[in-house]
Amino acid sequence: MSALPEAAGAVAAAVERELDALLPPVEGPLRQLAAAMRYAALGGGKRFRPLLVAAAARLGPADPAAVTRVGAAIELIHAYSLVHDDLPAMDDATLRRGKPACHKVYGEALAILVGDALQALAFEALARADWPVAPALRAELVAGLARAAGPLGMCGGQHLDLADAGRAGDAERIAYVEGLKTGALIAFATTAGGRLAGLDDDRLAALGGYARALGLAFQITDDLLDHEGDPRATGKDAGLDAASGKATLVSALGVTGARAKLAELEREASTALDIFDCQVTLLRRILSYVVTRTA
Amino acid sequence: MSALPEAAGAVAAAVERELDALLPPVEGPLRQLAAAMRYAALGGGKRFRPLLVAAAARLGPADPAAVTRVGAAIELIHAYSLVHDDLPAMDDATLRRGKPACHKVYGEALAILVGDALQALAFEALARADWPVAPALRAELVAGLARAAGPLGMCGGQHLDLADAGRAGDAERIAYVEGLKTGALIAFATTAGGRLAGLDDDRLAALGGYARALGLAFQITDDLLDHEGDPRATGKDAGLDAASGKATLVSALGVTGARAKLAELEREASTALDIFDCQVTLLRRILSYVVTRTA
Repeated sequence: MSALPEAAGAVAAAVERELDALLPPVEGPLRQLAAAMRYAALGGGKRFRPLLVAAAARLGPADPAAVTRVGAAIELIHAYSLVHDDLPAMDDATLRRGKPACHKVYGEALAILVGDALQALAFEALARADWPVAPALRAELVAGLARAAGPLGMCGGQHLDLADAGRAGDAERIAYVEGLKTGALIAFATTAGGRLAGLDDDRLAALGGYARALGLAFQITDDLLDHEGDPRATGKDAGLDAASGKATLVSALGVTGARAKLAELEREASTALDIFDCQVTLLRRILSYVVTRTA
Repeated sequence: MSALPEAAGAVAAAVERELDALLPPVEGPLRQLAAAMRYAALGGGKRFRPLLVAAAARLGPADPAAVTRVGAAIELIHAYSLVHDDLPAMDDATLRRGKPACHKVYGEALAILVGDALQALAFEALARADWPVAPALRAELVAGLARAAGPLGMCGGQHLDLADAGRAGDAERIAYVEGLKTGALIAFATTAGGRLAGLDDDRLAALGGYARALGLAFQITDDLLDHEGDPRATGKDAGLDAASGKATLVSALGVTGARAKLAELEREASTALDIFDCQVTLLRRILSYVVTRTA
């Protein structure tokens, strides 16, 4: 299986509508910034993290509007991180989601501001009182998303990823860095869905275990796709990692070793779901997708 | 009077301790990012916005720990904005608070990440449950700070400021841009202090009026200091605005016109405080400081 589960389409459409409503309108003096934010956040991407929110939220009675809002907030963070990661001073990428990177269209200064503004909007979306979640949970979700995105999460991971560039890293170090860079946000998405579903701590911990294994598996397939993927399918330049001498789990373990690690992570994620006796079909299908995806 | 009110010292010291506790420790794999964040956020600046929080919080019974937390969160946003504004693609400044700008010490990539991480930390600081404010107010403060910092606030203002570079702007446009770029955060600081003090809507609106006039006055004195200030006192390069052909209220109105506008704003801010029958001494002293400051 290499396609996203069917539910992904409806989740992506709901998140797209929510993002459209959250993003500033393209009018008035700030229309150029609004247009650039929309270029970066709308109409692209698999909406994989919102799908995780939705899949975990199925484990209990969650409000669909809340599921969509949390998914949209996470996508705002994800979109900002892609805009900043693509900057010349960072990964210097020209292509993103099959389109020119944000700074290629709008220039570096505006791209920096687009990322900054998308991050602020993500926290505003979770904190404001116009969606059906109690204030204490709204504050908890803000804190959780901020931790996942901040210095001990995504930002820290991107820093170490850049700092390690050109060095031959061992698999443990690479997994640690990837865990911060992409794993923290994936884990937040999954456990946030569980919180919306009202799960107890044991079940949230199980979701956390699933998400940590899934996140690393996602990164391994990302590295494999960079190594051997088709830019027309992935919408990204291929071979960037090798060209920049970047250590990945593929370079550290070889393609065969990386595939073995992937199988191990699949078992680990799958086992973590055994605590649930129903409603895990979508989480299992996401796992299958992650370990076999081609884009 | 050109010195900050005496209370400023105690406020700044409390905020400094709070920032030290909120910022990640300089240890482990992320120590370089932590050190760079600390370089940008600690030991510098007047802590003017936290002083506004504290001054407005005096208008009612506010918890001192809450006042400090809100001030620290605002300073994290302010510090991130300075790091990003100083980047080569933005204002390309080399000196900040009397020290080399963050990207001059740590490089561009890390400076971008420092800003990103400081922003996330600001929202985490307000959202987490370890300070004495009810969840609903924590969520409200997150939403308010995010709006003030986001596309329709600080980020929008910085975008227009860059977009207007080299153009002769009229005073109204410049005031609009400055209102977004620096006014929104100053207004948030002041009204947030009022919220911590439990003020009613009429009094919060009065604080908003005070803060809007104060914010623009602050920007005029900033522009006057750039025009004629002493870098040894301000800790910033002088004459950057004129060198870059930047339109400011000083270039649009002339020094005399700008000083007249400053006097008008002082009256406006002062009148807004007339609704309060006590405890406004500190707010009035801050106003005097703003219109007469030399650094």
